[in-house]
Amino acid sequence: MAQAPKANAVVGQSGGPTGVINASLVGIIEEANNHPEIKNLYGAVHAVAGMVKEEFVDLKKISADVLEAVAGSPSSALGSSRDKPDAEYCAKIFEVFKKRDIRYFFYIGGNDSANTAHIINNMAAETGYDLRAFHIPKTVDNDLLVTDHCPGFGTAAKFEACALMGDDLDNRALPGIKIDVIMGRNAGFLTAATVLGRQRDDDGPHLVYVPERPVSMEKFLGDIDGVYKKLGRCVVAVSEGICDTDGTTWAEKVAKFKEVDSHGNIQLSGTGALADYLAGQVRGSLKIKRVRADTFGYLQRSFAGLQSAVDAEEARACGREAVKLAMTEISGSVAMKRLGNGADYAVELFRTDLSNVAEFTKSLPDEYINADGNNITDAFVEYAMPLTGGLPKTEYLGNNPKV
Amino acid sequence: MAQAPKANAVVGQSGGPTGVINASLVGIIEEANNHPEIKNLYGAVHAVAGMVKEEFVDLKKISADVLEAVAGSPSSALGSSRDKPDAEYCAKIFEVFKKRDIRYFFYIGGNDSANTAHIINNMAAETGYDLRAFHIPKTVDNDLLVTDHCPGFGTAAKFEACALMGDDLDNRALPGIKIDVIMGRNAGFLTAATVLGRQRDDDGPHLVYVPERPVSMEKFLGDIDGVYKKLGRCVVAVSEGICDTDGTTWAEKVAKFKEVDSHGNIQLSGTGALADYLAGQVRGSLKIKRVRADTFGYLQRSFAGLQSAVDAEEARACGREAVKLAMTEISGSVAMKRLGNGADYAVELFRTDLSNVAEFTKSLPDEYINADGNNITDAFVEYAMPLTGGLPKTEYLGNNPKV
Repeated sequence: MAQAPKANAVVGQSGGPTGVINASLVGIIEEANNHPEIKNLYGAVHAVAGMVKEEFVDLKKISADVLEAVAGSPSSALGSSRDKPDAEYCAKIFEVFKKRDIRYFFYIGGNDSANTAHIINNMAAETGYDLRAFHIPKTVDNDLLVTDHCPGFGTAAKFEACALMGDDLDNRALPGIKIDVIMGRNAGFLTAATVLGRQRDDDGPHLVYVPERPVSMEKFLGDIDGVYKKLGRCVVAVSEGICDTDGTTWAEKVAKFKEVDSHGNIQLSGTGALADYLAGQVRGSLKIKRVRADTFGYLQRSFAGLQSAVDAEEARACGREAVKLAMTEISGSVAMKRLGNGADYAVELFRTDLSNVAEFTKSLPDEYINADGNNITDAFVEYAMPLTGGLPKTEYLGNNPKV
Repeated sequence: MAQAPKANAVVGQSGGPTGVINASLVGIIEEANNHPEIKNLYGAVHAVAGMVKEEFVDLKKISADVLEAVAGSPSSALGSSRDKPDAEYCAKIFEVFKKRDIRYFFYIGGNDSANTAHIINNMAAETGYDLRAFHIPKTVDNDLLVTDHCPGFGTAAKFEACALMGDDLDNRALPGIKIDVIMGRNAGFLTAATVLGRQRDDDGPHLVYVPERPVSMEKFLGDIDGVYKKLGRCVVAVSEGICDTDGTTWAEKVAKFKEVDSHGNIQLSGTGALADYLAGQVRGSLKIKRVRADTFGYLQRSFAGLQSAVDAEEARACGREAVKLAMTEISGSVAMKRLGNGADYAVELFRTDLSNVAEFTKSLPDEYINADGNNITDAFVEYAMPLTGGLPKTEYLGNNPKV
């Protein structure tokens, strides 16, 4: 265990924003202030792009008041980047590190960010440059390996739960078919979270489709028809990454339908296309009049004022932990282990190798999906509920006995 | 002033749900308990539809705990209806009223609901039936006449403000063009509310288009191009009811483009179509790579756990006021008069004739729209800000001086 160098540090926020990625940033800043080994703490504006261009903010100069507001703000307060640095890009970053005597590298992001930290860490090792490279997990998709769950997921899960609680009550008030298309890429965690607000036996979403279970249009329509015949309404949550039984995603299929106007420049592969397509299929095949579909879009990752308190606290703790680890370790990714559930919910943080997180992603486990592939099990609710930090209680009166 | 009859009362919730229409319902229930003149209080399930079918819930039997949860729940706890009763429909309702000795009629809804109350009230007057008919205002669109603002608007405005605060920070993190399509039918109030969260000079939305100001595609694209050239990004709020300079709505134009798949049953007029169309126009004409568009959909009116405290309190007060008025008046609609603004914000409730509210709707006043027709003035912010019940403060660090 080499002694921690007295040098500068850099922190960056990468990939899609979340509701608590700024809490991790603030955790890093406040913990860095506890360690005289860290001289300057540079905030890289737009992540790796800012590192190459040397666009750095002095994070030790930010007042405590502003830091608290940052911690409560959605999105990435330093700006983000979708760049996936190759070896040449990383070499440029490494040049800046050497020039600026940066020997601590903290990178908040998903598995691509862990991979970037991994590459830069290897480059440093090869040239004998004393660098500490740490990854702090972040993603609404909850698809990182090793960690029990990812900072950012709990807040997004709270959003989905509150959204579907409201949407289900809306659908009770004005019955029909409602389809909601949910974020999450190829992982079904966030779509599964739409069930967390269910409080009554007949609460929606009544059907939930995740990318882990391919579904045919025939089954999709049959399922909806079945619920509609029973309840006179049906609320459906569909992952944006839902796949057909032939292995292609439905979104790809929809994008193939070309739209032509006089300018020839409309693109159908927009965010609303899948939802509108599904609504059209239901309307056309099932002859149900009131069919609506929404795509929740960026609201899911960036809505202001809706943090899960648990998620924000954990995100901040993960940031602090990365700095603590950097005092004794060369590299790593911060992960969470669950110690108890329900009322005993607690986590402890631990270090895992960057390579364990960098390469692959996690899918929604089998035990969280029902046998029929169209709903979510209680085991998932037990897993995810503590992460939302509590949900509002709702009431509906229309089911009361009639007089 | 005739003495209030000792008889039964009915209450219904009509039209699109809001975040506080249930607070008005609970206001009616709690005030009805103060007046022995009201014997039974029937809740009509699905509004006028339930009145005709005699689907009534006994609202005096609901516990105080449940009532508080109802008051905090979005959507219509009794169920709603889009039926616009004609004379024959109203005659059926009136038959049930006579059969059940219902002499108090409370109807929470928009101008159509005021009109229903008006028709039934006239029918009662013609036949000498002693009926008290009262309308309690409700709409996220804020488009009712007479009242300063409508219960439901403040909560929806809070949603728009929080949504755009987050979306603007998201757009700072990953710059490009972002277009958000906002509810409100032909009134621009809700789209205007997207500006309420702006805290920095360069905060979005940078452009706001309301139905009250027709705009050509040429101007729309030119405006976006101008902001993009200046800021390197642009967040745009567009009302779903936006009109072209020829008077037709853009949504109508988009719906005309027909989509064909092998089944011939896709409909492009879904909720996402306008947003996707606008994104396609920007992408095609301005050659900007990162263009995204979201349609906020039903989340705007039914998101759980996001009430504006002021809005919820006023909605409840309006419900109570309707019952109080019914003790001394024959009919009317409850309206709010603003007594002070900013820190002195307060309202008083008053009665107006049903006919004053029933026929027409209100548009966003000229003084709330800038001269160029692409943004919202400070006068609107002064008007709307007190209604949101406070908004979160956010911070962004990427604009700080570089080191």
